[in-house]
Amino acid sequence: MEYYAIIVAAGKGTRMKSKVPKQFLLLNGKPVLMYSIENFFKVLSEIKIIVVLPSKEIPRWRKLCREFGLGIPHSIVSGGATRFESVQNGLKLVRKDGIVAVHDGVRPLASDVLIRRIFRKAKRFGTAIPVVKTKDSVRLLEGIKSRVIARNSIVFVQTPQCFRTMLLKRAYEQKFHPSFTDDASVVEAYGHSVKLVAGKEENIKITTKEDLLFAEALLKQR
Amino acid sequence: MEYYAIIVAAGKGTRMKSKVPKQFLLLNGKPVLMYSIENFFKVLSEIKIIVVLPSKEIPRWRKLCREFGLGIPHSIVSGGATRFESVQNGLKLVRKDGIVAVHDGVRPLASDVLIRRIFRKAKRFGTAIPVVKTKDSVRLLEGIKSRVIARNSIVFVQTPQCFRTMLLKRAYEQKFHPSFTDDASVVEAYGHSVKLVAGKEENIKITTKEDLLFAEALLKQR
Repeated sequence: MEYYAIIVAAGKGTRMKSKVPKQFLLLNGKPVLMYSIENFFKVLSEIKIIVVLPSKEIPRWRKLCREFGLGIPHSIVSGGATRFESVQNGLKLVRKDGIVAVHDGVRPLASDVLIRRIFRKAKRFGTAIPVVKTKDSVRLLEGIKSRVIARNSIVFVQTPQCFRTMLLKRAYEQKFHPSFTDDASVVEAYGHSVKLVAGKEENIKITTKEDLLFAEALLKQR
Repeated sequence: MEYYAIIVAAGKGTRMKSKVPKQFLLLNGKPVLMYSIENFFKVLSEIKIIVVLPSKEIPRWRKLCREFGLGIPHSIVSGGATRFESVQNGLKLVRKDGIVAVHDGVRPLASDVLIRRIFRKAKRFGTAIPVVKTKDSVRLLEGIKSRVIARNSIVFVQTPQCFRTMLLKRAYEQKFHPSFTDDASVVEAYGHSVKLVAGKEENIKITTKEDLLFAEALLKQR
């Protein structure tokens, strides 16, 4: 059984108003994306890591790897116009039966415990999607109106999302649809249900400068 | 026209696994609740501030006010068994026509801009509820199943929530119902619609140690 991690870092970081894409920003002095790669390698040293980057950022990434002495072997693949296409490109390197994790490159705080849990559940159920509850009141917008919905009926979806390799490859042969917001939704559209498992609150996605500050605070506490 | 702020700090902080209730925890060396009080006073120095505390924590709060030299005048009211009851107790001190804000004591980062916006909109529309969008994928749990819902159809509700005083007082004369998760839901149950306005992402609710770290990071950046 083979293990793969497709780390999607094909975003151009427009939300951050920074010239450096957010996956390359420094978190305690090290690029965000390097944490994501290291986290998988720590748990499964035999894992095949596939990093999806915007084509024009590949030279910059290679330079960063040299500068920071990143010794973890990984393949580099060019991203597409959408996240869907980027994952498709990554899946071309997934050839054997096993488990594949798809992970946001900008989630540098996925812990060992979380990564192990997701792989273990995916081996058992074929899929494993980490989710977390919310503590805020939630409203559903309906046209110009809105209504409260029970907060415990809502969960947020994180990554890594894990799947049997052949299932995810087949699901990604579908035509793109705007409802494909993550890998779980692609697999569901293919007709397969997904298994939700407990995620971790600290496994945040870095999309703003405030998130970067929060991640630094969390790392300090570890 | 009179302005009021009911700052609800009647929680006992069980989630924090700390003996100190979370509204009294130190944020950059100052109790969380003091930020909330100062934020309203900075924007509207004539505002009547009503702080709702657990009865047994009132002596501790008075001591903290002396220690930190908090000079902002405010009334102190005992909380009830539920948030609903706590707000009811606070509303007993709201007697004149005007605008009342109800605010979580553990949201110390409500900015001047946000507080001004909410009061302004409430003067115009009778109600103003700050909400923020989410950047994560969202799933709705339905029994043992779940399904993706469009992330832009969901918003999180923050505080301060502002209302015409007489509207909120009448709404809080209703009998308690478990669906009352915030003031907006109480007002809606009374038959009045609520006006959603843009909240602020950094206006976080402090319920875990990680939130406290995040708040410190955000304050440093200001």
